Amino acid sequence: MSKENYLFRGDFITARPDPGELSVYEDSYALVCDGVLEEITQVKPQIGDDVVEIDCKGKLIIPAFSDVHLHAVQYVTTGLGYDKELLPWLTDYTFPEEARFADHAYASRVFTDLVYDLWSGGTLHSSIFSSIHTDATVLLAELLADAGLSAFVGKVNMDRNGGVDLEETTEESMSETMRYLDLMAPFEDRGVKPILTPRFAPSCTPELMRWLGELSAEKGLFVQSHANENLGEIDWVKGLFPESRDYMSVYQDVDLLPKGRTVMAHCIYNTDEELEMMRERDVIVAHCPSSNANIASGIMPTAQMIDKGIKVGLGSDIGGGNRLFMGHHVSAAMKHSRLRWALTDRTSRVISFAEAFWMGTAAGGSFFGKTGAFMPGYSFDALVIDDCRLSPYRPLDVLERLQRFIFVGDDRLIVSRYRKGELLPEPNCMVK
Amino acid sequence: MSKENYLFRGDFITARPDPGELSVYEDSYALVCDGVLEEITQVKPQIGDDVVEIDCKGKLIIPAFSDVHLHAVQYVTTGLGYDKELLPWLTDYTFPEEARFADHAYASRVFTDLVYDLWSGGTLHSSIFSSIHTDATVLLAELLADAGLSAFVGKVNMDRNGGVDLEETTEESMSETMRYLDLMAPFEDRGVKPILTPRFAPSCTPELMRWLGELSAEKGLFVQSHANENLGEIDWVKGLFPESRDYMSVYQDVDLLPKGRTVMAHCIYNTDEELEMMRERDVIVAHCPSSNANIASGIMPTAQMIDKGIKVGLGSDIGGGNRLFMGHHVSAAMKHSRLRWALTDRTSRVISFAEAFWMGTAAGGSFFGKTGAFMPGYSFDALVIDDCRLSPYRPLDVLERLQRFIFVGDDRLIVSRYRKGELLPEPNCMVK
Repeated sequence: MSKENYLFRGDFITARPDPGELSVYEDSYALVCDGVLEEITQVKPQIGDDVVEIDCKGKLIIPAFSDVHLHAVQYVTTGLGYDKELLPWLTDYTFPEEARFADHAYASRVFTDLVYDLWSGGTLHSSIFSSIHTDATVLLAELLADAGLSAFVGKVNMDRNGGVDLEETTEESMSETMRYLDLMAPFEDRGVKPILTPRFAPSCTPELMRWLGELSAEKGLFVQSHANENLGEIDWVKGLFPESRDYMSVYQDVDLLPKGRTVMAHCIYNTDEELEMMRERDVIVAHCPSSNANIASGIMPTAQMIDKGIKVGLGSDIGGGNRLFMGHHVSAAMKHSRLRWALTDRTSRVISFAEAFWMGTAAGGSFFGKTGAFMPGYSFDALVIDDCRLSPYRPLDVLERLQRFIFVGDDRLIVSRYRKGELLPEPNCMVK
Repeated sequence: MSKENYLFRGDFITARPDPGELSVYEDSYALVCDGVLEEITQVKPQIGDDVVEIDCKGKLIIPAFSDVHLHAVQYVTTGLGYDKELLPWLTDYTFPEEARFADHAYASRVFTDLVYDLWSGGTLHSSIFSSIHTDATVLLAELLADAGLSAFVGKVNMDRNGGVDLEETTEESMSETMRYLDLMAPFEDRGVKPILTPRFAPSCTPELMRWLGELSAEKGLFVQSHANENLGEIDWVKGLFPESRDYMSVYQDVDLLPKGRTVMAHCIYNTDEELEMMRERDVIVAHCPSSNANIASGIMPTAQMIDKGIKVGLGSDIGGGNRLFMGHHVSAAMKHSRLRWALTDRTSRVISFAEAFWMGTAAGGSFFGKTGAFMPGYSFDALVIDDCRLSPYRPLDVLERLQRFIFVGDDRLIVSRYRKGELLPEPNCMVK
């Protein structure tokens, strides 16, 4: 597809790379060349004949959402088993479902709908756990690439504590990882990349973890995993890795926190040393408020982590979290911050709406390159929102309209999605 | 409209009047005569020619939702101002918006869409605060009745602390209440009833409260208000009513907790004496988890209140809460119970899915008469849900399908709504 240059007109609102106030450009023009934003101006710029005008006057235009933590293979069980805590929930619902993804036809049906829903909700970037199954994982990558979505898609590594149907030998895990990396190569220049995915420390032997750490260093690969989600889990990790100082060190000790290339999910219960390590390694935290409530994990001290200079993105974490639309998670991040304040420390700071929106766009987006904010030089990855359904009664300002979209709206209001300036057409799905 | 008799076929699931396990009737038949459920049977009963068959085979059929606390006049500002706490949120966003409902045309536009959204989300019963404006309140009642929805609609009483644009004199409040009661009479036999609505204790002088208490006793009227939502509010009430033992007593001391006819919103911070009073007066508590998070109020000890024999329904509490679809509040009730457990007391009990669903249907429904559960003798108020979009991959049982609808689905999956056995057609709306 040859790249056009575009001039978008509409009501733009964006976070910036650092948390803080949002920037509003009411009835303005965004010039996009080769998929990259040049500038946003209030006055219409002089443009040549090669620039296609896209008139979204009166509509909201926001950066696309980034979902930095979700489990594709839990799409079917999302919403089930929330009467449980993390560890029994995993063994009763999650692991048996994941084992089904050995079946290619089953994987194809489920992933087709998942990709449709990501597109529908405007999540154009996502960091995804698949299962241990290489072929299903690569199929998911292909479906994402075909839909024009950008993603990291990880084949899960898991050579212990998965049960009979969902476990590899250490050797299988290594050889399948190499096969997976080979098979992922064709999708890289379409924006779908591999990511090393040790499920979480209890699922991997030290031998496998060391091997993955070496592989990450050797090939410059990205890494995703879980940490400090649940108190029982943390105790378990202590028992399994007595030589490591703490949970985060289990990863760091084997080079599995590559600087600027790591996303860690949850991180609710961190020591000061772990926070400092995360900051130093430039780890992106995937805050997953919906999941943390559903499986009774707790509330991450979001504001305090942001204040320490840690970059906090948002994860839907389906199936622990129960909705894909990232507006729910932006609002849940605010709710949780405020509940934590009310229940534990009324002298603490709560996050602002601007910070929550930053988490779901700019902060999470930074894991995927220059995206997630309308900044010169950034990929123009944007959602056009027709919010007339929400605000027909009296004028609201652009910030208020964004708040209405996030708190009251959903994917129905997103009328178009652009990645690198190009319109993303509706992908296939099984059932609408 | 003359009543028909109906035989519905489908997959029924319901709570019962008391909290506990849900009852499932897979591929069964519900015989409905004169709007009332006779029985649900697995075998198709012998029926006469006068019985119309409604075949929803393969679809979920659940009791309609009841929303026992919402502010119709905050529909437009829902989602705004969640950077604030209760009292500044009221003065900055809520009161100025409510003052607009002196304008009949504005009220008509907003309420038309609100009624559409209630219908759309399957909330067939609701207990609604309007504003101080009698005419707008009666208009809302008319729109609800025209849509076939059942509701209590309250003209708000507020003779102090509302600011210049949103306050009545005590005398005006009384005379407008009498006018409101007269104007509401035509809607009563269509299921839309008046309810006395002192906004909350700080908004009403003791004189007005006493008068309302006498009126409730004299005419057997229902009452709705707020209590124990926020620590600052509770302190304020203590200062305003030093002679009352506690917040709930402020109402009880003036006969504003009529037995079995009262709904009180929030009730997060209750003393043991207040809990006992609520149980004794058969007060329905409107638990509003979304609102309680958005405006940083806290988390109600739901399980502990249920265990004390208090009936706990659910309120969307728009605009403090941010979504009307009651599935969000069923799931939020579970989430909050689990967060409270994780953050404050890991020896406490959390609510089950069955209890959360009971709150949104049977418990809340009991405020409106015999509805909210599929029980012989109960009004057949039901939603038919086509959930094939959510579960096409492999068979799920009926309970799992309900969980998927609540946690993952929304109003899009509700294909029809029945009140007293009659199909409710789509009402008008301004913008779709």
